[in-house]
Amino acid sequence: MTSATAPPAPTKKLLAALAGARQATPPIWLMRQAGRYLPEYRAIRSQAPSFLDFCYSPDLATEATLQPIRRFGFDAAILFSDILVMPDALGQSVSFESGEGPRLKPIETAADFAALREAPDWSRLEPVFETIGRVRAALPGDTALIGFCGAPWTVASYMIAGRGSPDQAPARLFAYREPDLFAKLIDRLADGSADYLLRQIRAGVETVQIFDSWSGVLPPAEFERWCLDPLKRILTRLLAEAPDVPVIAFPRGAATQLGKFADLAGLAAIGLDTAVEPRTAAAALPAPLVLQGNLDPLALLAGGRALDDEVERIVDAFAPRAHIFNLGHGILPETPIAHVERLIALVRG
Amino acid sequence: MTSATAPPAPTKKLLAALAGARQATPPIWLMRQAGRYLPEYRAIRSQAPSFLDFCYSPDLATEATLQPIRRFGFDAAILFSDILVMPDALGQSVSFESGEGPRLKPIETAADFAALREAPDWSRLEPVFETIGRVRAALPGDTALIGFCGAPWTVASYMIAGRGSPDQAPARLFAYREPDLFAKLIDRLADGSADYLLRQIRAGVETVQIFDSWSGVLPPAEFERWCLDPLKRILTRLLAEAPDVPVIAFPRGAATQLGKFADLAGLAAIGLDTAVEPRTAAAALPAPLVLQGNLDPLALLAGGRALDDEVERIVDAFAPRAHIFNLGHGILPETPIAHVERLIALVRG
Repeated sequence: MTSATAPPAPTKKLLAALAGARQATPPIWLMRQAGRYLPEYRAIRSQAPSFLDFCYSPDLATEATLQPIRRFGFDAAILFSDILVMPDALGQSVSFESGEGPRLKPIETAADFAALREAPDWSRLEPVFETIGRVRAALPGDTALIGFCGAPWTVASYMIAGRGSPDQAPARLFAYREPDLFAKLIDRLADGSADYLLRQIRAGVETVQIFDSWSGVLPPAEFERWCLDPLKRILTRLLAEAPDVPVIAFPRGAATQLGKFADLAGLAAIGLDTAVEPRTAAAALPAPLVLQGNLDPLALLAGGRALDDEVERIVDAFAPRAHIFNLGHGILPETPIAHVERLIALVRG
Repeated sequence: MTSATAPPAPTKKLLAALAGARQATPPIWLMRQAGRYLPEYRAIRSQAPSFLDFCYSPDLATEATLQPIRRFGFDAAILFSDILVMPDALGQSVSFESGEGPRLKPIETAADFAALREAPDWSRLEPVFETIGRVRAALPGDTALIGFCGAPWTVASYMIAGRGSPDQAPARLFAYREPDLFAKLIDRLADGSADYLLRQIRAGVETVQIFDSWSGVLPPAEFERWCLDPLKRILTRLLAEAPDVPVIAFPRGAATQLGKFADLAGLAAIGLDTAVEPRTAAAALPAPLVLQGNLDPLALLAGGRALDDEVERIVDAFAPRAHIFNLGHGILPETPIAHVERLIALVRG
């Protein structure tokens, strides 16, 4: 970074933090910041017949992405989409039942796996890239744009079970019983996801986050095989083809495994969930790794003294480092707008 | 232990391990070993109109407790009961919907809390103590009898929510909003649970396990306050009034917090869940603490090579220590009997 050819330091606060530079106050964005807790989102949701149609409408997805930026001025926008566009693009049937979460036609046999496409149908995802271009053009100059995908394990767990469940047992059982077939599915998702992120980058996102929402249900040996190894596979591709774009991993529930992320080539930052003790993580994880997190969404929902105390504790704990303020999990739909305003005021001092 | 007045070493294998003596092969019992995966349990379940009635029937609860001992010869029996007898004894309405888990009348206000009894109605729990006496008299001489209760946080989380949920959000939110009232509930549960365990000990159990099934949903600061501190309160009572009875804590999902259990006065053993890496735990936790666990119930359900490999890995990892073989969570109702037989053969070499 001291060479004469080093790129100029990023001016956007999120990107500067991702480059390892501690900011006077941390940049802030919230997982699921575009979505149901916003009245303006609820007002436009019905303009698409299904949730996937909404995600695949550049008009609606662009508007949803921009809404929280207009209202709160977060330091980053995150593409409004869903991690399950990947199985959809691989040819699996995906739908969303109102209030009940995703429903997929489960992959139960080798024949079900063989019926998947080898690679995503990019024409299906074209509206996503169109959305990225439009959002990027519309964002204020100091607001970064984040792309994302689901991590292979998490996406596979929905593809096997056909839905979410408290412990994603069907996919864990499938992986115990059919490890070779499961490995093929994971590899296909890793390769498709790397391509997907690279296409998002070409369309205009400035950083990407890989959501492994279900990594916490795996015992350590399985975590290594189904979460960490596929992440390395994705990072290798991104490091080779888009080395200047910082990557954030969010392995939810993997508090005991964080040390394994410390020296992953190509990983700029790690998202910490609510189970992680901020001061311990700030002390234990080597400084090149930027830390993101980790307010309990229930403290944000509760508001009042619990919110004030928790925010202060987190900001103080991470103060010595490059830190990105975020929740430890997605914002809850019942969260009052006033609590989000209070949060931003607290973080920005 | 070298003094002339030291008590004789226990002859039952589980109790010897709990006293810190490594056994040639680890003693084994399974969480939920009495229950739905057993055809002989399903055959008697309908003899009581409700699940609580079943728990409060000394005939049926004794039979259910003994069934897995007869079939498998586990090294310990665990009282057939439920952690929610405590709110029932405190006067809260508790029932179990078939296939849907518990339903309680939720505690939502200070008035709801005030309506609870100050201390458990021991007459309500008399059948439990009767069951313990009968089981103890019927057990083979080398089989230990384990009593148990739910940890205050876990029991409180059901009392507040009225049911189980993936993250016990209602109780977490209640604790953020009403910390003083919640603390009173936790204290009442801690005192009632300590009394309950002492009464179980007087009735004949030889060791007790405290199940904190939901401790993993709490951020570290809340974990300290709502899980660790109440556990200390219970341990203090037990250490004073039943110093010879070993206590096992099972803080599920608390893999990052295990170090805090290492030096708790009065704690003999800790149950490890599936998220804990056996070799790491065996190396990191100081030796006076006996380790119990931690086979993935899904590996037991899957059987075959996954089961063989996982059992070998766990037995080897804990081999240098006093270890009690168990699952990392309760046995699943779909588990084939033959897989349990295979597990026992593997563990006993």
